[in-house]
Amino acid sequence: MLTAWGVPGIGEVRPGDDLAALLGDALAADALARPATVLADGDVLVVTSKVVSKAEGRVVHAADREAAITAETVRVVATREHPGGVTRIVENRLGLVMAAAGVDASNTDEGTVLLLPEDPDATARALRAALTARFGVRVGVLVSDTAGRPWRQGQTDIAIGAAGVRVLDDLRGTTDTHGRPLQVSMAALADEIAAAAELVKGKATGLPVAVVRGMGHAVTPEDGAGARVLVRTGPDDMFAEGTAEAYARGWKDAADAGA
Amino acid sequence: MLTAWGVPGIGEVRPGDDLAALLGDALAADALARPATVLADGDVLVVTSKVVSKAEGRVVHAADREAAITAETVRVVATREHPGGVTRIVENRLGLVMAAAGVDASNTDEGTVLLLPEDPDATARALRAALTARFGVRVGVLVSDTAGRPWRQGQTDIAIGAAGVRVLDDLRGTTDTHGRPLQVSMAALADEIAAAAELVKGKATGLPVAVVRGMGHAVTPEDGAGARVLVRTGPDDMFAEGTAEAYARGWKDAADAGA
Repeated sequence: MLTAWGVPGIGEVRPGDDLAALLGDALAADALARPATVLADGDVLVVTSKVVSKAEGRVVHAADREAAITAETVRVVATREHPGGVTRIVENRLGLVMAAAGVDASNTDEGTVLLLPEDPDATARALRAALTARFGVRVGVLVSDTAGRPWRQGQTDIAIGAAGVRVLDDLRGTTDTHGRPLQVSMAALADEIAAAAELVKGKATGLPVAVVRGMGHAVTPEDGAGARVLVRTGPDDMFAEGTAEAYARGWKDAADAGA
Repeated sequence: MLTAWGVPGIGEVRPGDDLAALLGDALAADALARPATVLADGDVLVVTSKVVSKAEGRVVHAADREAAITAETVRVVATREHPGGVTRIVENRLGLVMAAAGVDASNTDEGTVLLLPEDPDATARALRAALTARFGVRVGVLVSDTAGRPWRQGQTDIAIGAAGVRVLDDLRGTTDTHGRPLQVSMAALADEIAAAAELVKGKATGLPVAVVRGMGHAVTPEDGAGARVLVRTGPDDMFAEGTAEAYARGWKDAADAGA
């Protein structure tokens, strides 16, 4: 059985705050108010990237939003103009392909925007170490962010940082209930845990952290490779460039080649 | 608080089976064994598309797998050759963009493959009506399937059918905790519920149905538009064609035009 709940009491996070301490305090207070929530072995904490960014001071002036997106952009994947402006789907430093490079103007002070955390895997490891030291339990930590995806409306949460969590469940080579080998089957567990956590965190409620219990089989003694292994760009990426962009490039190359 | 659990006791599903009856029987038995699981208002049942396909008899011979994929293909998005064969990412009848059009060779009898259900939204509505009639509770029903996605390793579950569930949480126009308007924010609730359910269903365990409790605010009195509204293809789709395919088409068009 899976259970998940949002952790109340974290409050506004400011640059320089000790996020592990804030998180630990909130968990401790929650455990008093709701004893069933006391942190246990096998729990996974899912921390919204926003509060990590705020604690890290990854804040820039809103007037610089477009410049911030450009600075965070490693590679432009696709752009689309529309009445509201220009949508840029780009690959950022973390290998994530997202609109606006993940730069975020919600839930931050007027006049500011947030960049994604510097190194969410490292943050996950640090949070994990601090919580383990404080509470003496073996937990996993994910850092989550919201992203759109091709061919589907709406956004879902994904894991952009991870420590102590088996992020991919590689079922290749195992058999199904008929004894037949499973084909392409690599469940992105960390993304599914992040999605489940979003159902109890939520953008309008302001709860930035959730605990997901029942995934103890995905919690590992070591920190592991982190969420970076969930990135799939490079030669394996069939959608490295948007359709319109690739078409235009093909046209141009042919024209230049006098084809 | 969110809770989710797999429903045991459904067993092998055969063409012509009354899935609603099988599901109802399993839920009733589970309620006796685990009284806390008795179905309640606001619960969401997540049914793996596989068992819907089996009950519908959407089974073809394995030797015809490639022909089945072709038949289910409305539009080819991208293809990639590799040592194991050819991967085809295509749009199928349901508007879903998936590898192999969603044709599935796991968890089905040797020598057979499964096609996706005929109309998963209709199935969700029928299951919902049957469960409401049998148990007298207001539940939502999702039909789930597993899909890969660009730029991320591994697969997650998504909702391909829905009834009585608000599939998208449209937060545009609402404000965040700072009173600022939320920007692009449309949470794909149904996909996140499907992902959460997959954590307690799972490909190797064989449990084809899960109950997700705690999303009562997303369960609606009416059936609603279903999961079809989660499809985003057409003019709004910046990735309607894979990069290599679009490039080749641009080249060809330029060459044909004598550019």
